Amino acid sequence: MSKFLNDPRNAVTESLRGFALCHAADVTLNESPRYVRRRCPNPGKVSIIAGGGSGHEPMHAGFVGFGMLDAAVPGEVFSSPSPDQILAAADAVAGKPGVLFIVKNYSGDIMNFEMAMEMRAGADRRVLIEDDVAVETSTYSSGRRGVAGTLVVEKIVGAAAESNADLEQCAIVAADVAARTRSMGVALSGCRVPTSDRPNLELPPGEMELGIGIHGEPGRRRAKLQSADDIMLELLTPVIEDLNPGSGEPLLLFINGFGGTPLMELYILYNAATRILAGRSAVIARSLVGSYVTSLEMAGASVTLTRLSPSLLSLWDAPVRTPALRCS
Amino acid sequence: MSKFLNDPRNAVTESLRGFALCHAADVTLNESPRYVRRRCPNPGKVSIIAGGGSGHEPMHAGFVGFGMLDAAVPGEVFSSPSPDQILAAADAVAGKPGVLFIVKNYSGDIMNFEMAMEMRAGADRRVLIEDDVAVETSTYSSGRRGVAGTLVVEKIVGAAAESNADLEQCAIVAADVAARTRSMGVALSGCRVPTSDRPNLELPPGEMELGIGIHGEPGRRRAKLQSADDIMLELLTPVIEDLNPGSGEPLLLFINGFGGTPLMELYILYNAATRILAGRSAVIARSLVGSYVTSLEMAGASVTLTRLSPSLLSLWDAPVRTPALRCS
Repeated sequence: MSKFLNDPRNAVTESLRGFALCHAADVTLNESPRYVRRRCPNPGKVSIIAGGGSGHEPMHAGFVGFGMLDAAVPGEVFSSPSPDQILAAADAVAGKPGVLFIVKNYSGDIMNFEMAMEMRAGADRRVLIEDDVAVETSTYSSGRRGVAGTLVVEKIVGAAAESNADLEQCAIVAADVAARTRSMGVALSGCRVPTSDRPNLELPPGEMELGIGIHGEPGRRRAKLQSADDIMLELLTPVIEDLNPGSGEPLLLFINGFGGTPLMELYILYNAATRILAGRSAVIARSLVGSYVTSLEMAGASVTLTRLSPSLLSLWDAPVRTPALRCS
Repeated sequence: MSKFLNDPRNAVTESLRGFALCHAADVTLNESPRYVRRRCPNPGKVSIIAGGGSGHEPMHAGFVGFGMLDAAVPGEVFSSPSPDQILAAADAVAGKPGVLFIVKNYSGDIMNFEMAMEMRAGADRRVLIEDDVAVETSTYSSGRRGVAGTLVVEKIVGAAAESNADLEQCAIVAADVAARTRSMGVALSGCRVPTSDRPNLELPPGEMELGIGIHGEPGRRRAKLQSADDIMLELLTPVIEDLNPGSGEPLLLFINGFGGTPLMELYILYNAATRILAGRSAVIARSLVGSYVTSLEMAGASVTLTRLSPSLLSLWDAPVRTPALRCS
């Protein structure tokens, strides 16, 4: 787990500098307090702002742009952003229509976004992401964790805001997508935080952690490595049981890599998922495969399903132009 | 290096099945002989076809689509595709304007593409990619290896073909971009081929291989891990010396991850590269950062520079719609 670093304590800042330089036509980095925003914010629409610990790149800063986020607020690696960061980001992009904050269900994130919202003293709204069916409480969470389903909410509500939905409508859409989205993940290795000299998860070779969290939190159980088909069945079964999609209901299938797993294996998992879903007469209407909600270089993957209504499907298909997700 | 696999011998096939299902609107997989082609080929233009061993995903199949490749021919992991695969791909997509084959400089690839071209007995052309400045001969190559610069050639000549350049013009553009493109990489770990039980490169913790090949071939030297700034200087210096860009000449800067390195570190490397290039008064006109030409889950990265003429710059900017690279 050797890393490309200068001073490990500056890893997030240096990386964001590189990111902002690379995508200077689209985004701007404010270093103190730290946030990333669209280069040309549109204060005439609802602002969509997400944030959380770093180490999950490209989430969230990679999703700043037309059709998705107006600003992202990156904390240190696996640490919540501070209220003043969140407040500064909101003040930089928001106009009269207000802000919808997208918050993953971790205690630190909830507390700091709530403080920022109190300081804003406006009519802003918040959606809580808790899509991980693996466990009901975890190291940093009371209730279910927010994981890769966050991308789906950000994409869909970002499209709604772009089409001039008002704050109440955006809050309803976001809550609706969140309620229709479930995920579960598995790790084949841990990762190492830049300022640490040890991995965050000790997994002996040949073992896996089923239901892993995106900070290396424990899952449901540790088991011997199985075939890709069997692993996908272990992940998809609880997701489907919890989501309980109707027969013929169109689904979004999202296979997410945690950072250290090659695309070849993600597509093997996708292939396994399509066969399991076909056996249950499920309709895969849209798909996404890639490492979008990561845990540094962790080897592993998650599966996310979203039950798509016709209106959510057209919002999913709406144009998006961000550094990490783009369709026209 | 645990992996998501069913039968390791079927890893490439299963992965391509998942890939083709996921991107069914855009690409089609032919399983025997194996190739991936655009769903709707355009036989009225020059066909651009690339191929080589698998394990470098998303290259090449992820680059099949409008503005880039017409077909990709994937061999087994780190093994050349057979002449009959290449022939079948060409026959499936090519029309009267002919085929430009993009071949990386590995002995097996050269031999098999040459055999396929003889069997086609047409007026097809070939461009050889040999952008890696690290070593002059290597395990599978006589002369320089073809590495991440391949993406740049595929993007630019793909745009030329889309704008109806004829075969001779495409061959000239491709040779021109190839001559203007140089790369060098570094590995912090090896990777494991699915059918093997050992990594392809034994790197003790805290060491790196400078000038690594994308199949784990030896580089210039092994050294203790250095800072990201110092590593980037070690990679960029030979690239710049070999390329010798003119003062003020616009450059494409491409930081490529090998599969196991998180985006956070790739942007730290990008940030380092921008500062080194600024110190030499170089102009970074375009940038690309991501894991596009990989070596399974190898931790590591490469830097590629291309000297962009005005016409190459506009071809780089032309629309491209492929599974892995997309801009409008």
